[in-house]
Amino acid sequence: ALAIEPFQLEDEYKELNATQWAWVIESLTKEQRLILWPHLDSSMLSSILSELHEDVRQQIVALLPKKDIEATVCAGTSVEALDILEVLPQKTASNIIKKLSSETQSEVEASLSYEEDEVGRYANKHVYTIADDALVSTVITAIKNSDTNLESNALFVVSSDLKFLGEVSLNDLLNAPKSSNVSAIVERSDMVLNDKESLIEASKAVQSTQKSLVPVIKENGQFVGVFSIHDALYIFQEFYEAQMAHMGKVNDEDLFSPVLTSTRRRAVWLGINLLTAFLASFVIGMFDKVLIEIVALAVLMPIVASMGGITGSQSLTLTIRGLATNQISQGNLSALHKKEFYVALLNSLCWATVVAVICYFWFENSVLAVIIAIAIIINMIVAAFSGVFIPVILEKMGVDPAIAGSVILTTVTDVVGFFVFLGGASIIFLW
Amino acid sequence: ALAIEPFQLEDEYKELNATQWAWVIESLTKEQRLILWPHLDSSMLSSILSELHEDVRQQIVALLPKKDIEATVCAGTSVEALDILEVLPQKTASNIIKKLSSETQSEVEASLSYEEDEVGRYANKHVYTIADDALVSTVITAIKNSDTNLESNALFVVSSDLKFLGEVSLNDLLNAPKSSNVSAIVERSDMVLNDKESLIEASKAVQSTQKSLVPVIKENGQFVGVFSIHDALYIFQEFYEAQMAHMGKVNDEDLFSPVLTSTRRRAVWLGINLLTAFLASFVIGMFDKVLIEIVALAVLMPIVASMGGITGSQSLTLTIRGLATNQISQGNLSALHKKEFYVALLNSLCWATVVAVICYFWFENSVLAVIIAIAIIINMIVAAFSGVFIPVILEKMGVDPAIAGSVILTTVTDVVGFFVFLGGASIIFLW
Repeated sequence: ALAIEPFQLEDEYKELNATQWAWVIESLTKEQRLILWPHLDSSMLSSILSELHEDVRQQIVALLPKKDIEATVCAGTSVEALDILEVLPQKTASNIIKKLSSETQSEVEASLSYEEDEVGRYANKHVYTIADDALVSTVITAIKNSDTNLESNALFVVSSDLKFLGEVSLNDLLNAPKSSNVSAIVERSDMVLNDKESLIEASKAVQSTQKSLVPVIKENGQFVGVFSIHDALYIFQEFYEAQMAHMGKVNDEDLFSPVLTSTRRRAVWLGINLLTAFLASFVIGMFDKVLIEIVALAVLMPIVASMGGITGSQSLTLTIRGLATNQISQGNLSALHKKEFYVALLNSLCWATVVAVICYFWFENSVLAVIIAIAIIINMIVAAFSGVFIPVILEKMGVDPAIAGSVILTTVTDVVGFFVFLGGASIIFLW
Repeated sequence: ALAIEPFQLEDEYKELNATQWAWVIESLTKEQRLILWPHLDSSMLSSILSELHEDVRQQIVALLPKKDIEATVCAGTSVEALDILEVLPQKTASNIIKKLSSETQSEVEASLSYEEDEVGRYANKHVYTIADDALVSTVITAIKNSDTNLESNALFVVSSDLKFLGEVSLNDLLNAPKSSNVSAIVERSDMVLNDKESLIEASKAVQSTQKSLVPVIKENGQFVGVFSIHDALYIFQEFYEAQMAHMGKVNDEDLFSPVLTSTRRRAVWLGINLLTAFLASFVIGMFDKVLIEIVALAVLMPIVASMGGITGSQSLTLTIRGLATNQISQGNLSALHKKEFYVALLNSLCWATVVAVICYFWFENSVLAVIIAIAIIINMIVAAFSGVFIPVILEKMGVDPAIAGSVILTTVTDVVGFFVFLGGASIIFLW
């Protein structure tokens, strides 16, 4: 399906919507993307660009003539314009903003007055509101005459000085006397979002309601726009994709990012890992005398480090999720530490025994078997504590535990594992 | 906030909705959960249970008297009932189903006729539909008189034999002549879901529309219920949480799962890892002669394995995401392999040089420096190929690459890393 011949596009691909087109484009190589682009329906270009992964959007925009970008941005909505402007150089972006229709321009400027992670920036400003002094009959007529469907069953009511007053449900609107004012039937919204709230918190809030649209208002009560459950879904998806990318030691990147870009981004993670690895090597190097005496130590030492690594990763994963959902606090931290300790204790006793038995039969050395068992137990317990402790500390320091947590944890489990195992062996076998 | 004194509940917690209560309960220990439970508003219990993490739901239900469970299930909606019945023993569940109101009972039974991951099971069957032969005026009156708000702007139209016919927007309904039939203004829905479709595919489909509710229909055209964007968000969240848990070598578990449950679940991952670790040890053991001669090899060997591990993890993470979004296919697989190869080649050349230089100065052995550089380059390139190859093969075999991928990959990078490095050293230093 991906080896698209551009001139066959018509039949198969005519029905795709912008989301589906973005999906297709993301799975193409750069060359294929460039062949395809001119054949797309020009009325969809701005929505497609807006739906694309940021890397791909940037790649395509960088290759388009300025005139085409301008035309695409001007043809789209303010939300789409914002996504495209984001990947443009500052100067080009300001030039294009000047050429937008005055309505879109003011919507875009309102968005740009917010920080990147504030919900005010992404609130849809292009939304149908009704005035509190309007007559019920006027509103019903307006709904009848509008050619687009309403996005929700509730209509947001705004005063003449743009203050948000609440919402009116269609049921109430239809039941109200035609000659009464909207203000007579307006109801307080169950939930409003503050415009400065962070995107992820706003998304959680929207998720906890059964509403599709939630109004976003300023501190002074002015109506900014609406944040939808579709927006929330998108934000969650971005959040999880980024967390998973970090867990896999990669930045969230396009499937077909340019080789040099990918190389550079991934090199950072590899470089940090190398530091960790050299630290572990340094610890091993401290015990070269015992390694020369007993080569079995070199054979077995990765087991100690790796069992600690997995245990730590398990506690870390649970803790990072708990921190992300705000379910870990000072109040339950010690209970969590205790639980993780007991889990690690039981598992370490179990697996240390297994390893000891295997080592005893493999190397016929009971002292070695005892040393590795003790080293595994210590390393797994330290790992479990670190798995809870490290992300909590990182979060307090304002560092994202999903990014830095596992690198630091691996350092701990490697260093402790090698140190305890080889150090213990040195004491027993060399003294 | 978590050290809740049960008798202070009234003031602070009165305004919490079911989602927020579930969130609070999940962050409590078992003992605290039991203290809190009797103080909750009994009309919310079924929604709270339904919102809870499956582990926690099971824990609480297991501790409640049968009568209380029955009362809670009967008081809730069919969707909530389903969530609670899921964590009950088969027999208890069937007994409770018999006591449900006939409407809820038939909704629950309709759901249970589907498999666990089919969208038909989770489609909301308790939805307001209109008959195609109803008069427009009748429908408008019904909307006016209904005391609950409509969930969406579109109304689903069903024929007398329960076939799904399409939808009617409120705008059209208000504009239509009062005496005409609904069938005159019904429009084909942009999207309908097949009831047998998998939950994750259904969720992706809903996400790609701007709709809040999508109708679910049987093969024969019969209307089953609706799947909402809120459901889709929940499914995505579960999907990502599970994937992240697997990446961290843990099953998706409750923060305060019982120690024995956690121990048992995590033991599986630790056991699999131990097999991997012993395989690596076995490879190291093959080269004990050269390890005795040159202790620096033991000091440096974790570096080779770990650089391969990170490279592989990077390719694996990208590939697993591409497979999850269906963006990797036969058509672009070789392009992806090629790109990952070049990225790994560049990075391996860069970091192998760094390691070689450090080793040269540390051990003053240029041959060793060359051997480790070559081993790192080979291992990183093999890792990048495996990172793409392994998940693709696993997916073809019907195994979830997010679960098995990284264990297999680590085995490959450890075995190849140790084999190439120690094997190369054996050839050079021992022959």
